Amino acid sequence: MKIALCQINPIAGDLSGNAAKILAWSRRAVDEGAELAVFPELCLTGYPPLDLLDRPRFLSECEATLNDLADALPAGLGVIVGAPRSNPSPAGKRLLNAVFLLEDGAVVAEVYKQLRPTYDVFDEYRYFEPGPPQEVVLWRGLRLGLHVCEDMWNNRETDPYHLYAANPVDALAAQGVDLFINVSGSPFATGRPAFREAIIAEICAEHGVPLVFVNEVGANTELIFDGGSGVWGPEGPLCTMQRFEESFGLWDTEQTACCGVAHVEEKIPDLHDALVLGIRDYVTKSPYFSKVLLGLSGGIDSALTAALAVEALGADRVVGITMPSAYSSEGSVTDSLALAQALGIEFHEMPIAPAVDGFTHMLAPLFAGKAPDVTEENLQARARGTTLMAVSNKFGYLLLTTGNKSETAVGYATLYGDMNGGLAVLSDVFKLDVYRLARYVNERAGRAIIPENSLTKPPSAELRPGQKDQDSLPPYEVLDPILERYVERHEDVDEIAAATGADRALVRRILDMVDRNEFKRRQAAPGLRVTTKAFGPGRRLPIVMRWQRADTPVPHAGQTHTAPEGA
Amino acid sequence: MKIALCQINPIAGDLSGNAAKILAWSRRAVDEGAELAVFPELCLTGYPPLDLLDRPRFLSECEATLNDLADALPAGLGVIVGAPRSNPSPAGKRLLNAVFLLEDGAVVAEVYKQLRPTYDVFDEYRYFEPGPPQEVVLWRGLRLGLHVCEDMWNNRETDPYHLYAANPVDALAAQGVDLFINVSGSPFATGRPAFREAIIAEICAEHGVPLVFVNEVGANTELIFDGGSGVWGPEGPLCTMQRFEESFGLWDTEQTACCGVAHVEEKIPDLHDALVLGIRDYVTKSPYFSKVLLGLSGGIDSALTAALAVEALGADRVVGITMPSAYSSEGSVTDSLALAQALGIEFHEMPIAPAVDGFTHMLAPLFAGKAPDVTEENLQARARGTTLMAVSNKFGYLLLTTGNKSETAVGYATLYGDMNGGLAVLSDVFKLDVYRLARYVNERAGRAIIPENSLTKPPSAELRPGQKDQDSLPPYEVLDPILERYVERHEDVDEIAAATGADRALVRRILDMVDRNEFKRRQAAPGLRVTTKAFGPGRRLPIVMRWQRADTPVPHAGQTHTAPEGA
Repeated sequence: MKIALCQINPIAGDLSGNAAKILAWSRRAVDEGAELAVFPELCLTGYPPLDLLDRPRFLSECEATLNDLADALPAGLGVIVGAPRSNPSPAGKRLLNAVFLLEDGAVVAEVYKQLRPTYDVFDEYRYFEPGPPQEVVLWRGLRLGLHVCEDMWNNRETDPYHLYAANPVDALAAQGVDLFINVSGSPFATGRPAFREAIIAEICAEHGVPLVFVNEVGANTELIFDGGSGVWGPEGPLCTMQRFEESFGLWDTEQTACCGVAHVEEKIPDLHDALVLGIRDYVTKSPYFSKVLLGLSGGIDSALTAALAVEALGADRVVGITMPSAYSSEGSVTDSLALAQALGIEFHEMPIAPAVDGFTHMLAPLFAGKAPDVTEENLQARARGTTLMAVSNKFGYLLLTTGNKSETAVGYATLYGDMNGGLAVLSDVFKLDVYRLARYVNERAGRAIIPENSLTKPPSAELRPGQKDQDSLPPYEVLDPILERYVERHEDVDEIAAATGADRALVRRILDMVDRNEFKRRQAAPGLRVTTKAFGPGRRLPIVMRWQRADTPVPHAGQTHTAPEGA
Repeated sequence: MKIALCQINPIAGDLSGNAAKILAWSRRAVDEGAELAVFPELCLTGYPPLDLLDRPRFLSECEATLNDLADALPAGLGVIVGAPRSNPSPAGKRLLNAVFLLEDGAVVAEVYKQLRPTYDVFDEYRYFEPGPPQEVVLWRGLRLGLHVCEDMWNNRETDPYHLYAANPVDALAAQGVDLFINVSGSPFATGRPAFREAIIAEICAEHGVPLVFVNEVGANTELIFDGGSGVWGPEGPLCTMQRFEESFGLWDTEQTACCGVAHVEEKIPDLHDALVLGIRDYVTKSPYFSKVLLGLSGGIDSALTAALAVEALGADRVVGITMPSAYSSEGSVTDSLALAQALGIEFHEMPIAPAVDGFTHMLAPLFAGKAPDVTEENLQARARGTTLMAVSNKFGYLLLTTGNKSETAVGYATLYGDMNGGLAVLSDVFKLDVYRLARYVNERAGRAIIPENSLTKPPSAELRPGQKDQDSLPPYEVLDPILERYVERHEDVDEIAAATGADRALVRRILDMVDRNEFKRRQAAPGLRVTTKAFGPGRRLPIVMRWQRADTPVPHAGQTHTAPEGA
């Protein structure tokens, strides 16, 4: 039997558009001789639909669209489609995260997701009741072990701790399965695709049957889905598909050799592809933006953002503006111009002195006798941010913000200034990786798109004379590992100091900076998520908060299992 | 037996401070002859601790602090304290939402929350595994039905739909209970306290025993807890406590007459008290702000915000700045000045022409030939926002933002302009309620603190000549009910048109405005939550989203329970 793996890029909420795509790809599946077409989790709504699921009208349109789709699909083809459905029970969450097997206008089988990820960016228990244990679907002589995304992630018997008690894959295998089918909305993060493939390989090896994995591709707001669909067997891959783009795969259950493209997962190329896809989908899935716009400072962050935007959208849809001040280096303009010329993008220079002078004049009476401080630095950043927003408003361009994860973490940015923008391209990329990505962009192009000077000069916000990032922050070689351990791994002062060799007082100071700047991040633009812990909706902290670490370390009891009477 | 009801105001994350408060109140309980002191849910961490619970160091400090507290508490007193504890099971979420009965340095009983609210602002399944069914705690001859917040909210047998299958209150009652004790972190929303008391009254009547209810009071970031603790019996209240402030209650189990203050719940006075508390706690729980600052436009929103801030903090901690432009009415300055004088606050006037002229000059080459549009309006708002932030930075004042829920809903506000600020005081208050609150403020004061002119002139953003809100929006008498039904009740076009009598095309246009402005709200300041559906973390929608409502209404299937094969 030929099975079509339909790695589509749905748009969140676009029920009619997503249904039309499912229909078109199903017709192709028939044309190519497939008997079964498999689409990703919640592909009718796009993943994640979030609180659209709270709206009865949205849900009734989902149901109507699914019914219409079932009627319209080609005769004789089995089509596996993910969509929400109402929970038939009078208790529990109102929805189930369902997968339907449609055939000849009817639902011939349906299964429900059992394990509902509710951590990081995932909020599935907010909407979905867990389904009952799945039963094997007997269809055209095959026993299909159909399940949904997270349902396969609890299979590692060797893990000391399990987030869920149930193991749906094992339970399906116990019923006798010819073929597992996992439909997913599994987003990209560095290292995640390889881990996912290892999980799949283990399942195939353990149970001796192939697994068809069909994942969503594309980006919806901050989440980027890498796709990476394919078929794995007990001995290894049987069919592997493109990542970071829509892809139609065809696999014959009789087939023993591997078809498709090899998956090579490397950190920097993956980051690059993810960010380009994230920019492209944010812009093209919104009906509002003809072009994107960004401020060019001559620094590495804005240079990389511009280069990625050009890859995502083409040079004719990217506009750069450099806005020098009295404290800008000569390079801020010349490096920006060199970048714009190398990219072939529209470029403008707008010195900010008139606006800054205006504010200075307005504020002079109130600020009389006060020494210059961070206020005047922020004023420059806000003059730039306001200028960029004026251009954005006048021409309908989306403003990209260019701050990286390192500076977002410690609050080395001006709210309502350089933080202005609709999409934060690099807010989940640490500074050292920004450099690596910039070099990769130049390597791929075979020329210095990003000026060598931007790569080598000491990073600076250029908001006061001679200012350098390293006046306020440790070198990024020291800072980034501290931040990664704190933000992504939840380690604390002593562990981080021990692991990195950094001074304990420095680590403490950095952690305090991260905590203190929660208020800025709360108002930050949505940022493309490329790690397992990005700033944004996957990281939720009180803003008014007063956790003072005890001065001396306390015994590390958080992960141990004390007896109930021991607390 | 005398029981102390300890309605405390904890600070999120402040383990040592909260523990010190629990200790002090416990000593008072002993002094007043109590045998048992009851504190709110998660009072050790403050509610909600959010992702602090992901940090092992925070959890180990919780455990150490609780142990130290148990040792320090007065001998002979039973103390009921809420805190997280590690889940002893090797599967499931790592924590339980626990309540400990401490006595003489030991944990003599503990129970765990079973029902974990995971909707709106609540994310408890993100952290907590449900506890096993609670067992009655036998203590000093009393059978205590101890449970946590949401555990009592699933008790209405008459409800057609239940969010949970379990009913912990019923299960406890079946074991035989002398006294229910519910410890809560139950936030305020209009109408919620009365509903909560009705639930409690029903439980007491149904099971014929009293219920001791101890709720957190105070605000943590956007959530405001009204307290409203007390004791109810089968025949009605036995002890009722102050709302919106810390309160120590003492109730004798032998007592039959009601003690304490009567709870009178009225919408506008409650809103007033909640907002004042929300401002006060945001400012005083943060270590950063000596004063608050806001822009005064002469309009009703900024006037009300200023008046509430003065009630929360005192006139000497509030600073108002009016920033007229070429389009400002004379009243924008005179009404602002009258307000500032009535309130006795520091006041400054800073015309924004110098900054606006600077930007206009900078942008002139690029904007040549372009007609003025919303760009120039936003520029004025951003010049004001930048000015206010400069003052905020220079003096360390918290900027309050003044937008109401009506304009926040439809996006009638400028991002990085009048949306600037650390706390949005009115973002969950519809415009009509802003007027009602303003009149209430004047009534309470017995004089026109808020100038009559601000109450009666047509609302205007004053960003172009002769502009009025009603040029772009329907009258608030029409707009607010539409918004309330869409945002808070999830109704859609046809239901809203039918219920309000508004034109269907108008309703459709308003709903589209709400949807389209998700991007602005994503970057909005945290706002004080006073309804069951505020903008902010309790409302999660995709920004890149393309739900096009079907032109004709579809059958309303969302709330029905179709059979599994019927979808």
